[in-house]
Amino acid sequence: MQELVERIRKYGKNLGNGILKVDGFINHQVDPALMDACGREFARRFKDIGATKVLTAEISGIAPALTTALHLGLPVVYARKHKPITMPDQVLLTLSPSHTKGRMVELIVSPEYLAGGERIIIIDDFLASGATVLGLVRLAHTVGAQVVGIGALIEKTFEGGRLALTHLGVPIESLARIRSMEGDQIFFEDE
Amino acid sequence: MQELVERIRKYGKNLGNGILKVDGFINHQVDPALMDACGREFARRFKDIGATKVLTAEISGIAPALTTALHLGLPVVYARKHKPITMPDQVLLTLSPSHTKGRMVELIVSPEYLAGGERIIIIDDFLASGATVLGLVRLAHTVGAQVVGIGALIEKTFEGGRLALTHLGVPIESLARIRSMEGDQIFFEDE
Repeated sequence: MQELVERIRKYGKNLGNGILKVDGFINHQVDPALMDACGREFARRFKDIGATKVLTAEISGIAPALTTALHLGLPVVYARKHKPITMPDQVLLTLSPSHTKGRMVELIVSPEYLAGGERIIIIDDFLASGATVLGLVRLAHTVGAQVVGIGALIEKTFEGGRLALTHLGVPIESLARIRSMEGDQIFFEDE
Repeated sequence: MQELVERIRKYGKNLGNGILKVDGFINHQVDPALMDACGREFARRFKDIGATKVLTAEISGIAPALTTALHLGLPVVYARKHKPITMPDQVLLTLSPSHTKGRMVELIVSPEYLAGGERIIIIDDFLASGATVLGLVRLAHTVGAQVVGIGALIEKTFEGGRLALTHLGVPIESLARIRSMEGDQIFFEDE
C-alpha cells in the first residue's frame, strides 16, 4: 500500500539487528487515519473469505486489527500477554518467542471468545519470523477454529515468516514488504 | 450514551470488589462498531477545545482513544507499561497504582511524541479512582503540555475519580456512569 510505504520511507528508522522503528505512526504514537486506511485495505483483500472474527496480539496489533474488524463488520479479540483478573481460571495459553523482547512471552485468550467453527483472520503490525502468528494459530486450532487469512502491516521478507506460514495454505497479505535495511536506507520489494 | 449503557446492562458482569467485567466488548474481545460510536461521541463532545493530541495508556485505552482520535483528526499516543527497545534511553516515566493488578505500574512516554505546548485529551476505558489519568496528566505537565479534556467509556462514580480530577478544571466526559453494583445488578446514575 503506497501510503504506508511512503510513511515508512519517510519516518521509519533502521535501529539495526533487523529492528525497524515505526513509533511515530504505528507503535507508540499512532496515526488513526493511516490505520483506518490500512484496515480498509485488509477488509477489501479479505472480504470474500467468510471470516467470523479478527484475532491479534496486544499491544501493537490492536490498532490495525480494530480498523480491519470495523471495516469487515466483525468482532476482534486481542490475545493478552498477562492474564487479567477478569479472565476465567481456565484459559487458552501458548508461548511465543518475542524478537524485540529477547524472551518468550505468553499469548492468552479466554475460551469465552474463541470457539470451534469460527473462521479467523489474524492481523498484526509486523510479520517477521512468523512466531507470533504461529502462536495465535495454535490458540485457534486448540479450540477447533480455522485460520482463513493472515495480514500484517509490514512484512520483513528477509526474516522468512511467509515461508513459516505457507503450510497453512491461507492468503497472507502484507501492506509494505521490506526486502532489506542498510544504514539509513530501507529497501522494499518490487523496487 | 445509551448504546454503551445497554451493552453493559446486558453483558457486563460484576465480579465483586468493584471490578466490572466488560471483556466481551471492550477489554479482550472488542466490538469495533461500538468503539467507533463511542469515539464519535467523544469527538462530538470535545470538538471545540482545540486539542492537538489524544493520550491514553495501553492496553484497554487504545481502542476508544484510537476511534476518538480518528474522528477528531488527531494523532494518538499510548503510554507504554514496559519500555520497548525502540524507545530512546531518556523517557518520560511515572508510576501509577493499578487497581486490577494490585501493584504499581509504569506509564512511559517517549519525549519524541509529547511536547510542550500541546493540548491533550486523555481517553481511557475506565474512570475509577482517577489514578491512571493523574499519571498521564503528570507526564503531560512534565513537558509543559496542557490537558484540556478527559474522557472515559465507563465511570464508576462510587470510586471518586471525578473528584480527584476536579482541580484540573477541564471537562470530564464519561459515556456510562455506574453508581453501584450489587450482586448481578448494575445501577447507573440518572436512574
